[in-house]
Amino acid sequence: MSGEQTASVPPTDRVQIFDTTLRDGEQSPGISLNTEEKVEIAEQLGRLSVDVIEAGFPITSPGDFEAVQAIARAVEGPVICGLARTHKADIDAAWNAIRDSERPRIHTFISTSDIHIEHQLQTDREDVKGQARAAVALARSLCEDVEFSPMDATRADVEFTAEVCAIAVAEGAGVINIPDTVGYTTPEEYTRYLRRLYELVPGLEDVTLSVHCHDDLGLAVANSYAGLLAGARQVECAVNGIGERAGNCSLEEIVMLLRTRRGEHGLDTEVDARELARTSRMVSRRTGYVIQPNKAIVGRNAFAHESGIHQDGVLKERTTYEIMDPTTVGLESNSIVLGKHSGRHALRDALEQLGFKVEGGALNQAFKRFKEIADKKKQVTALDLEAIVSDEMRERTDSYGLAWFEVEAGSRREPNARVAIRIPSGEESVGQASGDGPVDAIFGAIRDAVEADSELRSYTVSAVTEGEDALGEVTVMLHAHGRLASGQGVATDILEASARAYVRALSNALDGAAVREAEGLTADAAQLPTTPGP
Amino acid sequence: MSGEQTASVPPTDRVQIFDTTLRDGEQSPGISLNTEEKVEIAEQLGRLSVDVIEAGFPITSPGDFEAVQAIARAVEGPVICGLARTHKADIDAAWNAIRDSERPRIHTFISTSDIHIEHQLQTDREDVKGQARAAVALARSLCEDVEFSPMDATRADVEFTAEVCAIAVAEGAGVINIPDTVGYTTPEEYTRYLRRLYELVPGLEDVTLSVHCHDDLGLAVANSYAGLLAGARQVECAVNGIGERAGNCSLEEIVMLLRTRRGEHGLDTEVDARELARTSRMVSRRTGYVIQPNKAIVGRNAFAHESGIHQDGVLKERTTYEIMDPTTVGLESNSIVLGKHSGRHALRDALEQLGFKVEGGALNQAFKRFKEIADKKKQVTALDLEAIVSDEMRERTDSYGLAWFEVEAGSRREPNARVAIRIPSGEESVGQASGDGPVDAIFGAIRDAVEADSELRSYTVSAVTEGEDALGEVTVMLHAHGRLASGQGVATDILEASARAYVRALSNALDGAAVREAEGLTADAAQLPTTPGP
Repeated sequence: MSGEQTASVPPTDRVQIFDTTLRDGEQSPGISLNTEEKVEIAEQLGRLSVDVIEAGFPITSPGDFEAVQAIARAVEGPVICGLARTHKADIDAAWNAIRDSERPRIHTFISTSDIHIEHQLQTDREDVKGQARAAVALARSLCEDVEFSPMDATRADVEFTAEVCAIAVAEGAGVINIPDTVGYTTPEEYTRYLRRLYELVPGLEDVTLSVHCHDDLGLAVANSYAGLLAGARQVECAVNGIGERAGNCSLEEIVMLLRTRRGEHGLDTEVDARELARTSRMVSRRTGYVIQPNKAIVGRNAFAHESGIHQDGVLKERTTYEIMDPTTVGLESNSIVLGKHSGRHALRDALEQLGFKVEGGALNQAFKRFKEIADKKKQVTALDLEAIVSDEMRERTDSYGLAWFEVEAGSRREPNARVAIRIPSGEESVGQASGDGPVDAIFGAIRDAVEADSELRSYTVSAVTEGEDALGEVTVMLHAHGRLASGQGVATDILEASARAYVRALSNALDGAAVREAEGLTADAAQLPTTPGP
Repeated sequence: MSGEQTASVPPTDRVQIFDTTLRDGEQSPGISLNTEEKVEIAEQLGRLSVDVIEAGFPITSPGDFEAVQAIARAVEGPVICGLARTHKADIDAAWNAIRDSERPRIHTFISTSDIHIEHQLQTDREDVKGQARAAVALARSLCEDVEFSPMDATRADVEFTAEVCAIAVAEGAGVINIPDTVGYTTPEEYTRYLRRLYELVPGLEDVTLSVHCHDDLGLAVANSYAGLLAGARQVECAVNGIGERAGNCSLEEIVMLLRTRRGEHGLDTEVDARELARTSRMVSRRTGYVIQPNKAIVGRNAFAHESGIHQDGVLKERTTYEIMDPTTVGLESNSIVLGKHSGRHALRDALEQLGFKVEGGALNQAFKRFKEIADKKKQVTALDLEAIVSDEMRERTDSYGLAWFEVEAGSRREPNARVAIRIPSGEESVGQASGDGPVDAIFGAIRDAVEADSELRSYTVSAVTEGEDALGEVTVMLHAHGRLASGQGVATDILEASARAYVRALSNALDGAAVREAEGLTADAAQLPTTPGP
């Protein structure tokens, strides 16, 4: 870009959404998604019509490789991208994981900041240039679509970063992504940085410039937006803004910012915004990461005018206090209500309307669960169905299962629990424990039944819908078998939901442990990454 | 401002923090703080060294008036501000509520956008000018320090807004605040708007320009920052970013943005950042509004590098992935640990270190509670003490109390609960119920005991600290006596915490109902506000 803004703006006003929920988001502490769950989220991202799904970092573990491969095979529409350091082993693993996609992309990165080069990579600038050149060339020999990121670019010397980017462009990278890896930059500074790159990097105007911003100072959305105004046409973001530390640019916020202010700048994405609310709920449920009530776009209050003094203006004229219509992001748009007399056919239709294809044995199982809950709840809404089906999908992949439990508690006695667990052999194992409270007693009884050591790290409960007979959803994060793992459970009974969640978290920890054992065999050869990525 | 940025920048680089947690934040659905809790939060804001506390909107209810007055009398240091529409009754109420403060401020506002003028105020521009002139003149006749806000300014004609602001300046307003009431503007647009105001409003460079931004599009912090770069020297914000809809600019984010990037722009506040984490926890606990793990600065993961691949870089050199030291915002800085053998003296010292002055009967009560919990938990940490003392402080203000409860539950039987409630007369009333789960049964038994109708709206549980024997903290939001109210409870037993939270929410609903009954008598005379404020 040579001074004039227009010179650098690509002919199109279409912004590409690059979703990194399953890569940067999934690296958050305590998130442990299995392959089935990752595919489910990727399919929902497809319905949302994102342009690129960064499905994982295949070299990091056999589990990650398997998940990226499954997504590449199952999800049609978006580009499927795998992350790789500049090492040959990383790039080979990324390519092997994504090659079955109709539209594969390899994303390779290396830091250009001196602080990373010195302390993280323990090398020098010349070596970084050589690694970038070799990596992009290798990736291009395998795959047409290659993206390159100079990690920690915003804290790096812009001249050196430009040299490295010029090498990547010369070697055939079609996307150059400029990450604010530590969430340090500001809109003006980022704008200056990107404009300077347009001046320094030959051919940058012929490739797609991309932005990847972290939210450590609360500026991820604003910095991404500034980057788009400076000429970028891809934004890397994650659902609910999850990701390393304070997370990434929130997908729903940047999408609705562009759409709501489209008249101002002319930019827009092809995202189907009506899927935003559901995508947000799915990711929150699968990751166990709650959404605060005042979160923009998808928080419980984002559109709320509950108290009397607020409703007045909204009732007089909606636009008085609302700049977006909640139905455009998929809130308040679904009126599915089933009851205890609804049949299997009605359930299947309702689930289809929600985007779940459930047939055969899975439908029978879901119907059984639906009936149990419909007996207790007067109305089963779309939100309830989502939670039930999500819960059932988890059930099928568990190593352990909850058979039954019973508990006695109160303020005048020590709580006591008995729990029966179905173990992988098919038998039931019964455990018993007392504790500080009934949940503690149940968790103790589970540990007694499965004879496992584990330490609870966090425990959260929320209600799926409003009202007295709401379903409770419990998320447990625990440390077992040398790793953090989380599990969720849904039930009208909070103790049952807690027991389910704990049993699942234990199952996930065991699965993870098995994967890591397999990894142990190849760890040296693969030189496992010690960097979190952009 | 006449083109050159330097001309408009005030001589000082000191940014004033105007905290509106207790006004805009407290207007969020389901938040119901009583006077004692508001004073507690205001005192903590004093320890945080904010410059201005907007303590409430005194005309809206006798309860709000009483709370603002109590804060004006109790809290030394910050300016204490009361909000008022342009009506005489509002301004009189605001002045009467704050006049006992050493540093009182009246904040009056009226909309300048045509959409608000037409639909909300149902008047015309000339009338708005007249109302603004009269209101600022009246306020100045009562109070030296007067702030004026043209509500919905960012969607209003800038020329008209400038005319109204010029009137306010001419009448003696010392602070002109430009609200982005609906969270619609962007950093460049807001910058242009403020620069144009500097050109159009005579004397604007001699008063303090203020920014007030909402987060509907995820830009509240960035817009506030842009406003400061354009010459504003006061930023209106709320702890945890709470407030109408998606909330206000987050106090902790703008404070740490300014401090971390101080070298870039030279601006800073006088906030004691080491109090940020505690302030955030207090507001989250009192309001029942959870903080998502990836929230910047105060989220559980904001500084986290838990997984192996992240720790590597951090261990090699902290600045590789961290731009802020967690201890500077008050995280990981407290090492208080008490156990079951700690005495009353140790408890009092620990509480003092945490900023709680607890003496006499309150200390005895806190010590009793501490002993009960220390019997169950090996270590009682600073976070636990905060939760226990917060819980005890609530107890003293409740109309109802939990005497005892017992429950039997399991997957093979219907849960059943018995609960005894201490009613205001001092007697115990016992209720019994079954339900969908043990919590549902307990809530039913409470309703049975107090013979009250209420509907549960939300229910959340979180752990105060990590580990197996963590304290559970339950927040209940319910609808009773025609209003939303919330309550919290803390215990090692989740069922006990749930029962406490429900009983408190009911107490709060009753208190609120009593206040509203008193209001009914004066509602016509006071012309209760139908606008939420800036």
